[in-house]
Amino acid sequence: MEINRNNIANWLKELQDTICSALETADGQSKFEEENWTREEGGGGRTRIIRNGAVLEKGGVLFSAVEGDAPDFLFKEKQHSVTETLSESTKPKFFATGVSIVLHPQSPMVPIIHMNIRYFEMDNGTRWLGGGIDLTPHYIVEGDARFFHAELKRVCDAHHKDYYSKFKKWADDYFFISHRKETRGVGGIFFDRLNSGDAMSFEKNILFWQDVGRAFAPIYCELIHRNKNKTFTELNKQWQLLRRGRYVEFNLVYDKGTKFGLETNGRVESILMSLPKTAGWEYHFTPEKNSEEEKTLSLLKKGIDW
Amino acid sequence: MEINRNNIANWLKELQDTICSALETADGQSKFEEENWTREEGGGGRTRIIRNGAVLEKGGVLFSAVEGDAPDFLFKEKQHSVTETLSESTKPKFFATGVSIVLHPQSPMVPIIHMNIRYFEMDNGTRWLGGGIDLTPHYIVEGDARFFHAELKRVCDAHHKDYYSKFKKWADDYFFISHRKETRGVGGIFFDRLNSGDAMSFEKNILFWQDVGRAFAPIYCELIHRNKNKTFTELNKQWQLLRRGRYVEFNLVYDKGTKFGLETNGRVESILMSLPKTAGWEYHFTPEKNSEEEKTLSLLKKGIDW
Repeated sequence: MEINRNNIANWLKELQDTICSALETADGQSKFEEENWTREEGGGGRTRIIRNGAVLEKGGVLFSAVEGDAPDFLFKEKQHSVTETLSESTKPKFFATGVSIVLHPQSPMVPIIHMNIRYFEMDNGTRWLGGGIDLTPHYIVEGDARFFHAELKRVCDAHHKDYYSKFKKWADDYFFISHRKETRGVGGIFFDRLNSGDAMSFEKNILFWQDVGRAFAPIYCELIHRNKNKTFTELNKQWQLLRRGRYVEFNLVYDKGTKFGLETNGRVESILMSLPKTAGWEYHFTPEKNSEEEKTLSLLKKGIDW
Repeated sequence: MEINRNNIANWLKELQDTICSALETADGQSKFEEENWTREEGGGGRTRIIRNGAVLEKGGVLFSAVEGDAPDFLFKEKQHSVTETLSESTKPKFFATGVSIVLHPQSPMVPIIHMNIRYFEMDNGTRWLGGGIDLTPHYIVEGDARFFHAELKRVCDAHHKDYYSKFKKWADDYFFISHRKETRGVGGIFFDRLNSGDAMSFEKNILFWQDVGRAFAPIYCELIHRNKNKTFTELNKQWQLLRRGRYVEFNLVYDKGTKFGLETNGRVESILMSLPKTAGWEYHFTPEKNSEEEKTLSLLKKGIDW
């Protein structure tokens, strides 16, 4: 396709359709509810929420395409200066579009998953791609983590020999709950400001980025299929609440998209769709020796070569 | 008493004892568990946690007294500069001690409460007091809110005619969930860097500050007494989860103590004792017309003259 903002936004909407349809099939019970919204400063979104499914308890697959004056933080981050801001007249206009997904399953045996792919451009010619997928099992199943990473590596390797190792490390560093010294889950891939240079290279970047988006549904549907019929206990449900508590901590304390959205008066219901239906906290919870919970905690660290 | 760090810390420990004892009596079932900890850089704390009580589901009454090199943020905030930091050699030493309380009750009819009083000094002679009490009812009972504010006003008025109006407004502004455009609850009082000048005035500041600490237990025990035997429904419990979700949002996104603690490698279990045992989120929850939930939402705003 010709690379322009409309084509990219349309492709993302089709991806949203494809993913929702695959997830509804995998769930077998609930359907996505849709809400369209517009943004005062320009653009809007198509929020799709699923709840009370047979497999998925709460989650969203969100499309948005927004535009307006480029936010100051872009220049701050670039220049590593937090004191200067550009005057109104010199501010470029920006356009940003993306699909964001977080899914919280009913069963503690099915992992939480997150995916985001985004395209950004300014009228000064700057443009880039970003994205990421990461998996947060309540209980880490090593075979599933290996499958997940192997699939992401396959997608990456088809485009560049360095992508997987680079973007896997980036995910380890990004999806990290510093105050707990724990990773959020088993990681995945994360990349930002991807633009390899000239127009031809950018076309190749787009092809990679689209493949990341396309990989999401088959990977997660396979993980649902593998785990949804496993039995679980009340203890497993309690542990799920604690792991969801950590997910809440990450999203509210560290996640850049969430922070930026809340600080810039974004659409709160869409931003916080990532939070689970229920979560929990216990003072100083320590799992039993040699338990599955202890094993999972021991694997929540950076640099594991799945 | 003579004002020095040891006397102040000892007074705070006695206050912790008094409050824990009053709360155990009010609860009638659970006792506080105590954990003593030390901080590598200097000082430590005495954390007391209560859980699974008849009235109190989860909460803590925490004492700490820490010291070391004064953290950079103190100078940043003062100078309104975020780029300069002091060199190691010119950094004053600090000492800080305080009592922090958050209590999450079992019943949605009993309010959540928070109190903190703190003393801070540096070896360059700077010293000040800070504190606050705020009430977060899951369901706002106007008589209780009036009682709560009347009690705080009584404490304030005994020391300075302007304290209540000034510190009440400060609490409205501080305990505010910006992205929701909601106050956390019915507010209370909040003050920081209180030091009216010379030694004699500071003695008077201390007397006020101690009265704030002393007011906590009788106020909350009265609110427990008024509400603990009220019946409630499953809907009330669901609503409690959502209100607790907002409490989590405030603490993780806005609370300065929490943010500072997490950023400076504080004791995570003590800092996050403020989070409830369970919390919940629903996409776009809207209470029914003329319901108690809608009434509560309508009262979560700044500037109400209780």
